[in-house]
Amino acid sequence: MIYPVILCAGVGKRMKSVFPKVMHCVLDKPMLWWVLRSFRGLIDNEPIVVVGKNKDLISQYFAGEKINYVVQSEPLGTAHALLCAYKSLKSFSEEDYFLVMPGDMPLIKQETIKNLCKMSEQNNDITFITCKVDDPKGYGRILRDKDNNFLRIVEEKDAKSDELNIKEVNVGIYLIKIALLKLLYNIENNNAQGEYYLTDLLELALKMGYKIGTMEIFDQKEVLGVNSQKDLLEAQNEAKRTIIDVHLDNGVQIFDINSTWIGPEVCISSGAKIMPASVIYGKSKIGSSTIGPFSNVENSTIGDNCNVIYSVIRNSTIGNSVNIGPFSHIREETVVHDNIRIGNFVELKKTEIRNNSKVSHLSYLGDTSVGSNVNVGAGTITCNYDGFDKHRTTIEDDVFVGSDSILVAPVKLSKGSMVAAGSVITRDVPEDSLGIGRASQVNKAGWVKIFRSTKAKKKDD
Amino acid sequence: MIYPVILCAGVGKRMKSVFPKVMHCVLDKPMLWWVLRSFRGLIDNEPIVVVGKNKDLISQYFAGEKINYVVQSEPLGTAHALLCAYKSLKSFSEEDYFLVMPGDMPLIKQETIKNLCKMSEQNNDITFITCKVDDPKGYGRILRDKDNNFLRIVEEKDAKSDELNIKEVNVGIYLIKIALLKLLYNIENNNAQGEYYLTDLLELALKMGYKIGTMEIFDQKEVLGVNSQKDLLEAQNEAKRTIIDVHLDNGVQIFDINSTWIGPEVCISSGAKIMPASVIYGKSKIGSSTIGPFSNVENSTIGDNCNVIYSVIRNSTIGNSVNIGPFSHIREETVVHDNIRIGNFVELKKTEIRNNSKVSHLSYLGDTSVGSNVNVGAGTITCNYDGFDKHRTTIEDDVFVGSDSILVAPVKLSKGSMVAAGSVITRDVPEDSLGIGRASQVNKAGWVKIFRSTKAKKKDD
Amino acid sequence: MIYPVILCAGVGKRMKSVFPKVMHCVLDKPMLWWVLRSFRGLIDNEPIVVVGKNKDLISQYFAGEKINYVVQSEPLGTAHALLCAYKSLKSFSEEDYFLVMPGDMPLIKQETIKNLCKMSEQNNDITFITCKVDDPKGYGRILRDKDNNFLRIVEEKDAKSDELNIKEVNVGIYLIKIALLKLLYNIENNNAQGEYYLTDLLELALKMGYKIGTMEIFDQKEVLGVNSQKDLLEAQNEAKRTIIDVHLDNGVQIFDINSTWIGPEVCISSGAKIMPASVIYGKSKIGSSTIGPFSNVENSTIGDNCNVIYSVIRNSTIGNSVNIGPFSHIREETVVHDNIRIGNFVELKKTEIRNNSKVSHLSYLGDTSVGSNVNVGAGTITCNYDGFDKHRTTIEDDVFVGSDSILVAPVKLSKGSMVAAGSVITRDVPEDSLGIGRASQVNKAGWVKIFRSTKAKKKDD
Repeated sequence: MIYPVILCAGVGKRMKSVFPKVMHCVLDKPMLWWVLRSFRGLIDNEPIVVVGKNKDLISQYFAGEKINYVVQSEPLGTAHALLCAYKSLKSFSEEDYFLVMPGDMPLIKQETIKNLCKMSEQNNDITFITCKVDDPKGYGRILRDKDNNFLRIVEEKDAKSDELNIKEVNVGIYLIKIALLKLLYNIENNNAQGEYYLTDLLELALKMGYKIGTMEIFDQKEVLGVNSQKDLLEAQNEAKRTIIDVHLDNGVQIFDINSTWIGPEVCISSGAKIMPASVIYGKSKIGSSTIGPFSNVENSTIGDNCNVIYSVIRNSTIGNSVNIGPFSHIREETVVHDNIRIGNFVELKKTEIRNNSKVSHLSYLGDTSVGSNVNVGAGTITCNYDGFDKHRTTIEDDVFVGSDSILVAPVKLSKGSMVAAGSVITRDVPEDSLGIGRASQVNKAGWVKIFRSTKAKKKDD
Repeated sequence: MIYPVILCAGVGKRMKSVFPKVMHCVLDKPMLWWVLRSFRGLIDNEPIVVVGKNKDLISQYFAGEKINYVVQSEPLGTAHALLCAYKSLKSFSEEDYFLVMPGDMPLIKQETIKNLCKMSEQNNDITFITCKVDDPKGYGRILRDKDNNFLRIVEEKDAKSDELNIKEVNVGIYLIKIALLKLLYNIENNNAQGEYYLTDLLELALKMGYKIGTMEIFDQKEVLGVNSQKDLLEAQNEAKRTIIDVHLDNGVQIFDINSTWIGPEVCISSGAKIMPASVIYGKSKIGSSTIGPFSNVENSTIGDNCNVIYSVIRNSTIGNSVNIGPFSHIREETVVHDNIRIGNFVELKKTEIRNNSKVSHLSYLGDTSVGSNVNVGAGTITCNYDGFDKHRTTIEDDVFVGSDSILVAPVKLSKGSMVAAGSVITRDVPEDSLGIGRASQVNKAGWVKIFRSTKAKKKDD
Repeated sequence: MIYPVILCAGVGKRMKSVFPKVMHCVLDKPMLWWVLRSFRGLIDNEPIVVVGKNKDLISQYFAGEKINYVVQSEPLGTAHALLCAYKSLKSFSEEDYFLVMPGDMPLIKQETIKNLCKMSEQNNDITFITCKVDDPKGYGRILRDKDNNFLRIVEEKDAKSDELNIKEVNVGIYLIKIALLKLLYNIENNNAQGEYYLTDLLELALKMGYKIGTMEIFDQKEVLGVNSQKDLLEAQNEAKRTIIDVHLDNGVQIFDINSTWIGPEVCISSGAKIMPASVIYGKSKIGSSTIGPFSNVENSTIGDNCNVIYSVIRNSTIGNSVNIGPFSHIREETVVHDNIRIGNFVELKKTEIRNNSKVSHLSYLGDTSVGSNVNVGAGTITCNYDGFDKHRTTIEDDVFVGSDSILVAPVKLSKGSMVAAGSVITRDVPEDSLGIGRASQVNKAGWVKIFRSTKAKKKDD
């Protein structure tokens, strides 16, 4: 049995942000999300997330996920954090393991965690991950004997000059038998920071003859710990590139790597074209369609053969053969069926549109049902809100809504009806009827001449 | 006489796309377009394009261009493809040449093809292009004697380990005397794939004592064969960069290479400024104007001293000193003359606007003629479509269209006339007259208090 | 006393632009701006800017800044330009200095100029900056003796082959005692171009036994002289990167370096998030808010906790907790207070909006004051312009403006009033009253059937 423990209480001073460090996003997900993902499916036990003052922001974001939050009320170091986690365990076996991970290592791969978990079969008391890194500064160096067996970790402050040159370091991911955790009580904090360090546990365990193993990994990017905004940017680029490579390999055409952002939960069909400056985030699913340029799709499903340009689509479902944009905004709970045109400067909210309909220009449809073969003219606006309540508008099949019409909800335009351009529609329009509500035109001959001369006169005064 | 033959029947499995490989775009043009361009102006003969099942999509795109499509109904290899092309020739001389090129080599330069064509003067039976490449994997290696004379090509599968290290390869572009093509009948397909390979023709010709020459080129990017989405991306970046360099050298200021895409048919004047995130495609012609940021111009002409920001312009003509955007959409067959402002959230379609006019906000003009010195107020909409037919709107010189007016076409606003704000105009407005069609305002004193208390009561219930 | 002299009269042929070279922008500022900035705060004397035919464009841009423009009417070389500057001095001491700088070196650092100015204490007659550069082509090489003392500058055309290999060059920035400037009269122009070169002054001074010193700097990017559009692009990228690094270090999260442009005068608070494709220029000040993706902020202040997506904001002030976009355009002199929603397709101009109000969709408010707790419905348009004058609209607290209303200014909606959807409001609406100005709806039963059959008949004809 393995219990994941994620250390997230660190303040992250070098981020220079009031925001909790592990909640900084890599693509559309906080770093902690990426760490949690690294053992999803591998370990069933509820992860223990050790938090500090930042608990609320974290638990709010992950609401709905099974997480055991343990609060480390004072920042007394990683060993103290682990002790908090240990104390919170209600029932466990001494032969169970803690998988200890930092919350700021978003690029760690599932494969790596899988391999580390397998190490529990070797029955080490502690196994930890090492990696050769270009710049070992700040890390504990791994000392090995001439047969390459692990001897011990030497912390930077204690290292001799030749030891400082060692590139293999302790990256901070451990698999620890729970039996050992009571040793945490014996760790001291007589150091400059007055903190309890988890690395001291290793030293103690080693002295006491426990069996300690290492697992070396070879891609140093994986264990990039994010401590500054620059680190975060590096993690971002790396995560982004990895995801894009997968989509390219799947037959998605991506026109520009630099200006394409695809989140880790997005699915894209082969044959899709992702044009420059596209952001696709959340649980989006894209069929064999063209997205972009300059589009943003979030938590939405888009079918095949669609075009989405210069538009924003969120929390909505788009069918097949739908043309959207430029400059459209499709908001929450909108469903657009097949063979539909959503034109420029159009906003849809909680609206369903059935096949072969058009909303081509400068319109706002909110809380509306639109049937099939409907033409919604330019400048049509639903008044779904009276200052107190929201009401629905229903537009049945084969309706023609003239331009610049105002539909004051609740209202229904029945099958085959028409609305004359510029009408304010406050009552239902029956089947095949024309609803008209506008004043008649009058031409005032010569009026403009007088108006102009009056204005000109005023200017002269 | 040289006949170009482009081999496009390949399935391109590694693209993982249902789309024909040669129709994948580099910038705004399919790869095949780039290959065809490489001998445009050099060779007058109609090119032979060998296609497979993908014929329709290809011939549709190139409709209007003189191309002799030859269908290779089964994918039996490059030699078989060439045989299909050979059989399709109606009249030719044995001394004529085939210029054989793959359809997936979009970066090949015209200069290179020109030089190869000149080789026909040397009277080789076959001349083919070689290039030293960093990664020769998969290519036939070029064996030479100690005087550097071409000996033969060795295919990868037959190569000894030292031969595998040879970097000079056969890139797949050949100039072949037609007399030799009957040898294609002698080629066998006793290989793993059961295909007939064009490289076997070289071996056969060599054995039979024909004269075979090579032409080495030195820029390996030029002969990048696109086999995967990653290759395509590489070709894209390369093509893009080459085009941008030309514009920079011409005195165009480009603020950001990464987010600028300029198609191969675009002309830009010196003194133009291309701001970040601009896409300029098709046969566009840009004067000394500022395009972008975030603009998309396609098949359009833009004069001098214009600004186009956050806007999309397609198939239209813009004069001088025109300010467009942010957030404008100028659609097909629109002509905008000089000294004009097209403001935010404005759509123009099949509309002509003469000098010194303004359409500044939230308007849709379709099928409209606008004179000079016209002010089209915010929210003006032309109702050009009655559900059955499209009609034209005419706005003559010096007209003032009040805000939120609806112009129900066919309708004419004569010279110097005005439309009162909020009017629905269904009949022509004569010269210097005011057209007004709106209800008078009534104020219902205290009405809101009652409304509010009713609403509040309901909520309480 | 130090007088800065900036040489800007050069034609800059290789830019291939009609535009003066020093007015080409790096980010949002002309190159000359960057050069002037390099001694801002260090030197109080009015800088002398030597201009040519380009004077007007330059002096127009820098209107309001104290600059002494000296016109070099013919391009007779750098020594002649300096002579023009010298002649223009009205009163000075022979012990004063000229700080001579080229106008096309935008990356030069203030630190460097500070250090150079300190050299005046060493009492050299001339001190000039040198730097080792990768490609010394075109520069004068620095010859030194075996003790590394400066001997002389050798111009490229006079250099022997081993001298050509010298990497240390004269970058063109000099601190010259004014006493020496009369030597400028002795310089000759017997060279191919017939120009008077400033480097000849050094040679002359050296011959005459004046004391000449060098100050070597070590970052060659700093002295990149911009001579072509490619150089400009390089300077652009370098300036951009330097600025972004500062913001990252300050705790600003920047999601993408490539598509983020931040001007040199922009302030951003820690905790801000700058999303991809953002342009922030001018004297903008951004609080702990999220800007982008795809936003453009110019000369504007944005408070904390705001979101600005797909929007353009210029010359405006935004408070706290304001959501803007997608697709909004906030223009000059607009003030938006706290807790406000500016929705999609909304344009604001010279408009003030007080707390807790909403302008959510498809509206244009110009010259308008909006109180607090106001709801401006979709499609609301202020008619602020009657073709001659602009008028103001006033909307007091707690007003509800129904959708698609037209407010014909000057007009006032008093506290707690409402406007019925689709009304044209031409007169003030009193407190708690409903203003309504729209025609009643009529339904014409069966009308559509007749319309359709008529239309169908016509088509048959």
